[in-house]
Amino acid sequence: MATHRIAVIPGDGIGKEVVPEGIRVLEAAGRRFGIDFAWESFDWSCERYAETGAMMPEDGLAQIRSHDAIFFGAVGFPNVPDHVSLWGLLIPMRRGFQQYVNLRPVRLMPGIPSPLAGRAPGEIDFWIVRENTEGEYSSIGGRMFEGTDDEVVVQESIFTRRGVDRILRYAFELARSRPKKHLTSATKSNGIAITMPFWDERVRAVADEYPDVRTDQYHIDILTAHFVQHPDWFDVVVGSNLFGDILSDLGPGVTGTIGIAPSANLNPERAFPSLFEPVHGSAPDIAGRGIANPIGQIWSGAMMLEHLGHADAAAAVMAAIEGVLTTGPRTRDAGGTANTIEVGTAIAEAV
Amino acid sequence: MATHRIAVIPGDGIGKEVVPEGIRVLEAAGRRFGIDFAWESFDWSCERYAETGAMMPEDGLAQIRSHDAIFFGAVGFPNVPDHVSLWGLLIPMRRGFQQYVNLRPVRLMPGIPSPLAGRAPGEIDFWIVRENTEGEYSSIGGRMFEGTDDEVVVQESIFTRRGVDRILRYAFELARSRPKKHLTSATKSNGIAITMPFWDERVRAVADEYPDVRTDQYHIDILTAHFVQHPDWFDVVVGSNLFGDILSDLGPGVTGTIGIAPSANLNPERAFPSLFEPVHGSAPDIAGRGIANPIGQIWSGAMMLEHLGHADAAAAVMAAIEGVLTTGPRTRDAGGTANTIEVGTAIAEAV
Ligand SMILES: CC(C)[C@H](C(=O)O)[C@@H](O)C(=O)O
Ligand SMILES: CC(C)[C@H](C(=O)O)[C@@H](O)C(=O)O
Repeated sequence: MATHRIAVIPGDGIGKEVVPEGIRVLEAAGRRFGIDFAWESFDWSCERYAETGAMMPEDGLAQIRSHDAIFFGAVGFPNVPDHVSLWGLLIPMRRGFQQYVNLRPVRLMPGIPSPLAGRAPGEIDFWIVRENTEGEYSSIGGRMFEGTDDEVVVQESIFTRRGVDRILRYAFELARSRPKKHLTSATKSNGIAITMPFWDERVRAVADEYPDVRTDQYHIDILTAHFVQHPDWFDVVVGSNLFGDILSDLGPGVTGTIGIAPSANLNPERAFPSLFEPVHGSAPDIAGRGIANPIGQIWSGAMMLEHLGHADAAAAVMAAIEGVLTTGPRTRDAGGTANTIEVGTAIAEAV
Repeated sequence: MATHRIAVIPGDGIGKEVVPEGIRVLEAAGRRFGIDFAWESFDWSCERYAETGAMMPEDGLAQIRSHDAIFFGAVGFPNVPDHVSLWGLLIPMRRGFQQYVNLRPVRLMPGIPSPLAGRAPGEIDFWIVRENTEGEYSSIGGRMFEGTDDEVVVQESIFTRRGVDRILRYAFELARSRPKKHLTSATKSNGIAITMPFWDERVRAVADEYPDVRTDQYHIDILTAHFVQHPDWFDVVVGSNLFGDILSDLGPGVTGTIGIAPSANLNPERAFPSLFEPVHGSAPDIAGRGIANPIGQIWSGAMMLEHLGHADAAAAVMAAIEGVLTTGPRTRDAGGTANTIEVGTAIAEAV
């Protein structure tokens, strides 16, 4: 029985409430499928920042570099600016560990009302593959004539062939593994007329290696409208850091699952640990009351199981989530009265 | 009776079919409200590009600089790359004429089914104000190590205080003029951590001048989800060139009006002509068959009337559009069998 060493970073707010439920369910799956976990907890957070001036220790990345995965809750504190909490922890991990794939499912789930009219579970079921390390999220740029009426602020978007090709290959492989074998690329080469035509070029070049995958592309503006009007069109959607970010909130918005959506930050080569986190944030407004919905964290745990090579255990967790979504118990946001622990326990028992 | 000199650029494809219907309706409104138009037509288009190698003559902008407005159809030909048609005509006009406001309505209209469940006309009615000349649509950048595995492609986003403040002021003025007095700013300062924090700063600075306007902001990712889940939250939404572009397709996607949405490219100071165009493109797939829906063009005409100072005539055109949307005739895309001319004529008669 292999032991997986998992670095656990609950973070702030409801992160600290939902992570234990994720662990509870993963432990249950471990018992059933013979998987052993060694959990090691780290207090990296805005709370830590408030006390010490840093989200994580200077050698933080080195401390967890050889773990098998990172199970992450959420960070964010009302008085800590976003760019501190993110650029001090999440983004360094994405980059330092070359987690160049951000993978998020868009799936209409049972028991969750979608804002769309006349759509049933099964009809919407696709993946967003987001480039997670370069592109529009660069730290190169700055200001000139600061503080005056002539102020000019510049920021570079940087795309490399290596960075673009590896995310495209991942997306094409994923599309190839699915029945529909359909890949959609998000672009904006008509307006962002330097980097995006390059992106399109690489899509065409890599597509040549995947003649069995049907490939199309839409400009990001109309693509967002298609997400609402034709979510059944999509199978695997690949986008740059920014476009993937937008689409992976919009998709769960369309299915009504934004509060329970999971995400995986993957280093597919397994040279570094991958990171699994819910899409939701630390929700300071409801933190401390034990009412947060733990399903996003648990679903992220299912993605972690899949990544660690336990597809059967991942499927069992997904089935348990769907069962509890259908029959309850449910937290308040989902129309129920149960608390975080009750929902986590119910899913663990169903596993 | 003032005569308005209008430069008419039908463009390609269905642009040439819907522009005459727009003119038909504007003429009808002119007869009723005593407005005189002098229409001057220009053949600037991909067709012209195919023949002469240029979308417009070299002195194109000078030829129409002193017109009162530009009534634009759509450009685009299957074999002409987007960046040629757009950067050779539309974008030079937006920039050359300092049409720094791109204004688009998001409105649930009678007779148009929305993809959203349980929403009625009146519940969704807001404006997108998009910065239209700078930001992410820059032409600065390029490639290094081109054609090799080391290829790097860079593009700058450029925001100026002058450019940001003027679009924000326009948006705040618009919000102030509306009953709800509510402005939402689209940002992404947590990820695009150089230009977007500057945008947020300017929002805060300009908001100080508008204490009567309620101001909030969302990151673009979650904002797109809110457009789907809570479209009733919005009144005036302001965004950068790229974010505004995305939101102004997503908004009409949510209301089901993407095929009939209008847009105004405004130079609020009236130093240069403003440009009015439907959101839809030249639709080569249905061009030449006389079945295109002319309502986007006609609605753009209503926005032009408003800009030219004829609010009453604009309201009459909008009422006529709503009447025909309710009772028909309708083109095929809207579930009817009428052709372009029949719908245009019906709206003109209703005016
Ligand atoms: C065609 C394209 C360059 C344009 C834009 O992105 O500005 C279009 O999408 C629009 O919104 O007018
Ligand atoms: C918090 C923010 C920097 C982050 C991102 O944009 O990457 C978040 O939106 C996400 O999608 O994980």
